[in-house]
Amino acid sequence: MVSYNPKDWWKLIFDFHKSDTFRQLLPGILGVALFTAFVAFLENDYFHVTFKNTTVIHSLVGFVLSMLLVFRTNSAYDRWWEGRKLWGAMVNNTRSLTLKINQIEGGSEIKADIKLLLIDFVYATKEHLRNGVNLKSLNQKTRDLLAEYHDNIPLGIMNIIHQKVTLLLQNHDDSYMKMVYLNDDLKSFMDILGGCERIKKTPIPFSYSLFLKKVIFIYIFTMPIGFVREFGYWACPIVALIFYVFVGIELLAEEIEDPFGTDANDLPTDTIFNTIKQNLNQIF
Amino acid sequence: MVSYNPKDWWKLIFDFHKSDTFRQLLPGILGVALFTAFVAFLENDYFHVTFKNTTVIHSLVGFVLSMLLVFRTNSAYDRWWEGRKLWGAMVNNTRSLTLKINQIEGGSEIKADIKLLLIDFVYATKEHLRNGVNLKSLNQKTRDLLAEYHDNIPLGIMNIIHQKVTLLLQNHDDSYMKMVYLNDDLKSFMDILGGCERIKKTPIPFSYSLFLKKVIFIYIFTMPIGFVREFGYWACPIVALIFYVFVGIELLAEEIEDPFGTDANDLPTDTIFNTIKQNLNQIF
Amino acid sequence: MVSYNPKDWWKLIFDFHKSDTFRQLLPGILGVALFTAFVAFLENDYFHVTFKNTTVIHSLVGFVLSMLLVFRTNSAYDRWWEGRKLWGAMVNNTRSLTLKINQIEGGSEIKADIKLLLIDFVYATKEHLRNGVNLKSLNQKTRDLLAEYHDNIPLGIMNIIHQKVTLLLQNHDDSYMKMVYLNDDLKSFMDILGGCERIKKTPIPFSYSLFLKKVIFIYIFTMPIGFVREFGYWACPIVALIFYVFVGIELLAEEIEDPFGTDANDLPTDTIFNTIKQNLNQIF
Amino acid sequence: MVSYNPKDWWKLIFDFHKSDTFRQLLPGILGVALFTAFVAFLENDYFHVTFKNTTVIHSLVGFVLSMLLVFRTNSAYDRWWEGRKLWGAMVNNTRSLTLKINQIEGGSEIKADIKLLLIDFVYATKEHLRNGVNLKSLNQKTRDLLAEYHDNIPLGIMNIIHQKVTLLLQNHDDSYMKMVYLNDDLKSFMDILGGCERIKKTPIPFSYSLFLKKVIFIYIFTMPIGFVREFGYWACPIVALIFYVFVGIELLAEEIEDPFGTDANDLPTDTIFNTIKQNLNQIF
Amino acid sequence: MVSYNPKDWWKLIFDFHKSDTFRQLLPGILGVALFTAFVAFLENDYFHVTFKNTTVIHSLVGFVLSMLLVFRTNSAYDRWWEGRKLWGAMVNNTRSLTLKINQIEGGSEIKADIKLLLIDFVYATKEHLRNGVNLKSLNQKTRDLLAEYHDNIPLGIMNIIHQKVTLLLQNHDDSYMKMVYLNDDLKSFMDILGGCERIKKTPIPFSYSLFLKKVIFIYIFTMPIGFVREFGYWACPIVALIFYVFVGIELLAEEIEDPFGTDANDLPTDTIFNTIKQNLNQIF
Repeated sequence: MVSYNPKDWWKLIFDFHKSDTFRQLLPGILGVALFTAFVAFLENDYFHVTFKNTTVIHSLVGFVLSMLLVFRTNSAYDRWWEGRKLWGAMVNNTRSLTLKINQIEGGSEIKADIKLLLIDFVYATKEHLRNGVNLKSLNQKTRDLLAEYHDNIPLGIMNIIHQKVTLLLQNHDDSYMKMVYLNDDLKSFMDILGGCERIKKTPIPFSYSLFLKKVIFIYIFTMPIGFVREFGYWACPIVALIFYVFVGIELLAEEIEDPFGTDANDLPTDTIFNTIKQNLNQIF
Repeated sequence: MVSYNPKDWWKLIFDFHKSDTFRQLLPGILGVALFTAFVAFLENDYFHVTFKNTTVIHSLVGFVLSMLLVFRTNSAYDRWWEGRKLWGAMVNNTRSLTLKINQIEGGSEIKADIKLLLIDFVYATKEHLRNGVNLKSLNQKTRDLLAEYHDNIPLGIMNIIHQKVTLLLQNHDDSYMKMVYLNDDLKSFMDILGGCERIKKTPIPFSYSLFLKKVIFIYIFTMPIGFVREFGYWACPIVALIFYVFVGIELLAEEIEDPFGTDANDLPTDTIFNTIKQNLNQIF
Repeated sequence: MVSYNPKDWWKLIFDFHKSDTFRQLLPGILGVALFTAFVAFLENDYFHVTFKNTTVIHSLVGFVLSMLLVFRTNSAYDRWWEGRKLWGAMVNNTRSLTLKINQIEGGSEIKADIKLLLIDFVYATKEHLRNGVNLKSLNQKTRDLLAEYHDNIPLGIMNIIHQKVTLLLQNHDDSYMKMVYLNDDLKSFMDILGGCERIKKTPIPFSYSLFLKKVIFIYIFTMPIGFVREFGYWACPIVALIFYVFVGIELLAEEIEDPFGTDANDLPTDTIFNTIKQNLNQIF
Repeated sequence: MVSYNPKDWWKLIFDFHKSDTFRQLLPGILGVALFTAFVAFLENDYFHVTFKNTTVIHSLVGFVLSMLLVFRTNSAYDRWWEGRKLWGAMVNNTRSLTLKINQIEGGSEIKADIKLLLIDFVYATKEHLRNGVNLKSLNQKTRDLLAEYHDNIPLGIMNIIHQKVTLLLQNHDDSYMKMVYLNDDLKSFMDILGGCERIKKTPIPFSYSLFLKKVIFIYIFTMPIGFVREFGYWACPIVALIFYVFVGIELLAEEIEDPFGTDANDLPTDTIFNTIKQNLNQIF
Repeated sequence: MVSYNPKDWWKLIFDFHKSDTFRQLLPGILGVALFTAFVAFLENDYFHVTFKNTTVIHSLVGFVLSMLLVFRTNSAYDRWWEGRKLWGAMVNNTRSLTLKINQIEGGSEIKADIKLLLIDFVYATKEHLRNGVNLKSLNQKTRDLLAEYHDNIPLGIMNIIHQKVTLLLQNHDDSYMKMVYLNDDLKSFMDILGGCERIKKTPIPFSYSLFLKKVIFIYIFTMPIGFVREFGYWACPIVALIFYVFVGIELLAEEIEDPFGTDANDLPTDTIFNTIKQNLNQIF
């Protein structure tokens, strides 16, 4: 995630960041402008066509298209923000579980192991949502315990954490009372892991992606036909601007829809991981 | 569910997938274009009618229609996404329950049975939401236990799971403390099953479906009357385009509203079932 | 609730169901058309008024009115869908409670009573949300127990269920551990009953209903003044169409706002009651 | 809250209820009409100005203003509906807690006290959200117990309820198991009290209120400048109508934003209090 | 937070509060007006350009821009309101925990300590979300206990609270039953702390901020080109007004997006802290 000051207008307007939509769309914008110029030349200077003004049509379709794009933006943003909430819950629940574990009498070695495993769980979840976990980055201890478990690494680590917690409590009279006490926190990790996997694996339905792209395409490429009669060569920047706005919105939605990568708009899971590590180490 | 790369614009724009709305609507689009041509011929070349421009009316109604379609899209998408969340919860809770069961001392045979029954429960739920469960695809053991239970198969399996869990804990001193510990996970299966049944059985209210289709119909078929005076035969592609956009949105909403089938836009419940099976088998 | 196939376009467009908004509005539509014709006659043929085009005003107000109607539709639909969710929770929680009760050792007679009482609770809630409960339709046993309890019947039945559950557990060592285990399910019935009562008793705020109806009225009845200058007698179908669309949306919202009745768009609480009855009888 | 039949269109359209926005805005509407007439006289008859049509500007700004007003309406309605849900939860949880308390063995006097205190809690919360609690309306018993507690009366009552519940359970072996059993219900009262206080004390951010009112003001009072050229004295009803619609929406939002008073649109907390009282007295 | 009467229209319209968007934007508004005047001079009086009307383009783009701004406003407001809810939960849960702690027998000194620590936790969270906690403002006792804990002060205080609660319950037979009873309240503090940190640290995605500012900039600065042909020097107030409305909405969203500071629109966390302090001191 890029850190930025949202109130620095001039910088944001004139700085062309690597991940800036404008920079990404520049070839497209120029292409559309050229295409419009070509249509303008054909219609006005070559064929001398006498179309009537069709801007009304593009108003009508532009309206429904805008609403679809806002629907698209909303659903992509919801996904991004849900991902952020899940990682926020990761912070809250690792803290809460460690605070609780810390107060349980005895087993200080097992408690240290659980802390390490929790940190590895967060790390493994982060990598699992990118390109898969590189086992070598995990703790040596965790790696040994994971020996026969390679498919879903975070799930494997959570299985070991459950074993360790059971071990910690095995001689306690009220061991399952304590399990009930720890239950919410422990259970939540499965919800976080599963929730992130869900967001990663389920983009918006195929047909919507198809439909939106087709409608934008038809909308932009039929636009010059009517507009060049009205505005002549001035239609080039106009169509290019509308192309920038409409395609830009779709592009932004695509970018934030899968928020666990390392792009400029992705969630700062690396930073969150470090915060968690630091926090847990401060508790005990 | 079709897997696709949402960033591959050209492919999505020019590939006419079997489930593509454009392909499905092609006959309709051509029909509307022909109808418009016919109206154009009647008005302009035969009766030489001198209507005034009525595009303002279609702007006005088009606006409220667009907003209704966005409402429709939102409510259909919410249904689809809620279905996805319920199946995500299926993943999370089968994992969580198995992790917990695995740590309970003793009864390893019963624990294996519970795992098998959980897998069958997921399978039965998946099929129950389609055309009903084919008992033959279930485990032999499960089938024997289900002998007298044929109406709601997943509910029957869950009844057996409850029996098995009670059996597993029967000689434990703190059996109901453990039941409380397992309660959230066990209970959630009833919420998932019921939630999916709710989505499947309740489309948007009858009157909305009726109303939307009627308004779209009137909207599209009165459109040529005013438009052919303004645009002549050019009204054909215009009306066809608007038909494509408006009817397409309604069609997409219909498609994703019932997300448990095997259509291109339906949820990948088969894949999710396989993930669950694999995950549970890795835990023990 | 009417069962229908949402994909059967032609049938839905041309079938004039009893609860169809079009049929309900037909007198209004004709009235508005006549009124417009009368205005057209007065303005164009009698007074020969020379108004300027005021369609721009109706565009402006039409826009904000559409957005209000969408807000109205959203809030009515949310109510309908929340009602559906509450009845879905009724299904889930009666199932879940019965599964749990079934596994508790001993007291098979009391358990059968609880099942009967649960079925009566669902039935009483359903009727309570319509015209009040006819005590005669309840089980004889339930009626005897309800003797001194006539104000809120479902609440009375739930009181008896609590008594029966306490009775069932009274000689158990861990009776309140079991109560905690059953707590979520038992408590949820109060949330469902109260939630449905809330939806039934609270329509959208009085002033909104008043305001929306007034604005629609002024909007529709000032429309002919400007439109008949522009479109002559053609304004009749135009104004009638706009009347149909705008008043139709308000009417649909009114219909689904109170979803517990027996209208075509109301929730299928009768069917849900039968499902619950069948499900509980299959569990034991 | 005013009880009304939402389907009685004619009554709602022509009845000018005391709290009707139309009646409240009447002076404003007449004022705006006079102002427009004055501008019309100045521009058309005195200065004979020759402005161009500026309706396009008011369309553009009107659009964004409408969307802001819908945002405003949504957030105000959400507040109103959340307040209703909190009072619904008050109904559900007093019922649920009383059902549970009723089944606890022994202490019938303390149980009667708890019931009285619950009723006083609901009453005190209702008054606390208006002008503060008049201690004299509370039960004599409650008043004595509250002797040294005057700042937040409902919180004080809840403190006494906690004392009474502890007293009720003090000789029970499993007293804290029972506390866990009652926990959800008891705890919810703090959430309800705090939630209502939050809604009451936090209107939408200051700047939004300021901004919306300024934009509406500029919008309405610049409108005649362009409109009187186009429509002459007919601009008076037009501008007055638009004033009614836009200011009406803002006014309605203001009215329902703080829903705990005794205005026509406020929540029926008095009725709800009576329902609760009646229900609790029926349980035992 | 500024306290204000939302119904005092005239005051709100004519009072130019320090934090008023209008006052903040005044230089910008004047700048845009001058720029438009300059363009008007160039086009109309110097170059005598004969552009065609381009207001249709600004309508089209203005529409999609409005919808994006509403999306922006919604997401910023959701953040603000979620922050308010979290601080509301802070009120509810400190009250609820103190009510419960108060009823636990024995350890009155430890109970007093816990109360002090809770107040310090709220204070530290408030400051932590601004510029970091000044340790000197905390209780001497808390400071001593925090000796080796300086990174996340609220987390450190919560760790001490957990120690104190364990200490309070250490000789109780059912200590972990009581922990389960207190669990919801204790755990919620981690959710509140983490939730506030999440809102503070995560503005809307970088690309959206960039994109919106770029589109607004292009929109406003291309507007005079077409408008001065249509309206001459009258375009100056028109463009300035549109600048005020569009940039104002973005500015308001920026202001409320990070709601924990001390600006006019920020949440009243200082007042809430005082309420909590007062409430806890009244409980015991």
